[in-house]
Amino acid sequence: MDKQTLHNTRARILPYVHNTPIFTSHLLDDMSGAKLYFKCENFQKMGAFKMRGAVNAILQLSTEQQERGVVTHSSGNFAQALSLAAKILNVPAYIVMPDNAPKVKSEAVVGYGGNITLCAATIAAREAAAAKIVAERGATFIHPSNNLNVILGNATVGMELLQAHPNLQMIVSPVGGGGLIAGTALSSHFFGVDCKTIGGEPKVVDDAYRSMQTGQIEKNEVSHTIADGLRTQLGDINFPIIQQYVDHIICVEEQEIIQAMKLLWERLKIVVEPSSAVAFAAVLKNRDYFKDQHVAIILSGGNVDLETIKFS
Amino acid sequence: MDKQTLHNTRARILPYVHNTPIFTSHLLDDMSGAKLYFKCENFQKMGAFKMRGAVNAILQLSTEQQERGVVTHSSGNFAQALSLAAKILNVPAYIVMPDNAPKVKSEAVVGYGGNITLCAATIAAREAAAAKIVAERGATFIHPSNNLNVILGNATVGMELLQAHPNLQMIVSPVGGGGLIAGTALSSHFFGVDCKTIGGEPKVVDDAYRSMQTGQIEKNEVSHTIADGLRTQLGDINFPIIQQYVDHIICVEEQEIIQAMKLLWERLKIVVEPSSAVAFAAVLKNRDYFKDQHVAIILSGGNVDLETIKFS
Repeated sequence: MDKQTLHNTRARILPYVHNTPIFTSHLLDDMSGAKLYFKCENFQKMGAFKMRGAVNAILQLSTEQQERGVVTHSSGNFAQALSLAAKILNVPAYIVMPDNAPKVKSEAVVGYGGNITLCAATIAAREAAAAKIVAERGATFIHPSNNLNVILGNATVGMELLQAHPNLQMIVSPVGGGGLIAGTALSSHFFGVDCKTIGGEPKVVDDAYRSMQTGQIEKNEVSHTIADGLRTQLGDINFPIIQQYVDHIICVEEQEIIQAMKLLWERLKIVVEPSSAVAFAAVLKNRDYFKDQHVAIILSGGNVDLETIKFS
Repeated sequence: MDKQTLHNTRARILPYVHNTPIFTSHLLDDMSGAKLYFKCENFQKMGAFKMRGAVNAILQLSTEQQERGVVTHSSGNFAQALSLAAKILNVPAYIVMPDNAPKVKSEAVVGYGGNITLCAATIAAREAAAAKIVAERGATFIHPSNNLNVILGNATVGMELLQAHPNLQMIVSPVGGGGLIAGTALSSHFFGVDCKTIGGEPKVVDDAYRSMQTGQIEKNEVSHTIADGLRTQLGDINFPIIQQYVDHIICVEEQEIIQAMKLLWERLKIVVEPSSAVAFAAVLKNRDYFKDQHVAIILSGGNVDLETIKFS
């Protein structure tokens, strides 16, 4: 791993993704005590950073592999990202989804041209369904977060931040499966000047926080956080990167996530997912730590079901 | 009125307002059949286009007038805009508000440094309260929409659109008090190449539509539209401009406004007020008319009470 690998990744995916805008707000600076830079991946294609990793993973396949297609199991943004990336690159995409996934999610995948295979809502069932597609079609399995090419694609978020603001002292990323924060940590390490990578994680699914403490990948017993993109756990490819390059992880309560999300909607006038608000909540909760620092916050996506969201 | 007047206006207010971004969306283009350009005044200072007219009106006062301050009556965005513009320009601002105005509105005005005078919720009471401040303090009354300097300030929205996209064939603006559409019509006339200005208005408060038909300023009997910024009526300064330069006005139902707003939030990932969605609803409703045209839609603001908004 070196700078050039990351430069090559950025050049590779550049024609297919947006260099998303970075928003600032005097009012949110005053509230937090820090100078904040919000990286708006809610404006990324298909509405989340996941597009970057999906494009990079497909582009790293051989022509033969691309012809046989790609497979993933996800009911969230990566399913949509892989479907859209595959469509743009003219590659078949097979998406394994649990049969209890919200209709709006499966419709989005179909809208982007993905081929859905439904399975029972267990890890064993989805892994079996994906393995079957790999065996039958020769398609390549792309994990949503525990895949080095996905991680490298995700690293371009931090690269764009540091290109625009080389003086950043901290980048705060939400932590779910670990793919975004691992990529972010690589970008801070290779392109920042003493720039720390810090994670924000919901307290009720604090597996990454505990994994950093114990030195092994921990699991969650429950998954009932509003930040539905962060219910997953770390993997053996991203965890070593996180251990080496992430400074620390801050856990936040559900109510803090909702309050942070409301502030982002009200003050920045943008729609972001609960998962996006976790990183901002971590900053608001630790005012003294972030005081007077130049802090980037990655707003990871904007795909939310408006009919179910409640602020009151 | 000539091009130079508008150029001078833009130069005058430029240090104090944002040249807001213009968003595009393939998906919304496909849905509408037109090529759409969304002018995001929700990202304007204080969250609405009103900042432009407020700044221009204050800057056109003499030093003596500025020292004595400015007055307006408004419970909406113009109260906040005049307060913030006055604060930035170091001028006292007196805001007359009905005593039943939502607390969130009066708090916002106070937050921007405005001095509030509460009055009974009638037109007579608010006009009397404003007149008293004018008499006692020598302050200058600035009407939210029926003031030529406010209209000229608002015209800079359309100027920025036509500077970025000189080939625009139509600009669609919401119609309330008439200040935004009058300014927009001036910009289309002086800077567009056969660029039409079209209004979008809620059907339940269709006073501007009827005024265009009868040739005189019509009133509304009711005001119960969700588009709370559009409940007001035209004035004797903006109506002649509207008559001369606006092509026509399209009325939309309440449900169409909500659906259009939901699409903007979901697809553009931005928070816009119901009033902003009225112009987009007008385009969606008249697919054949707008088909294949280059159409700008002015998203007038983003100040909405998230705790009361309902999409389901």
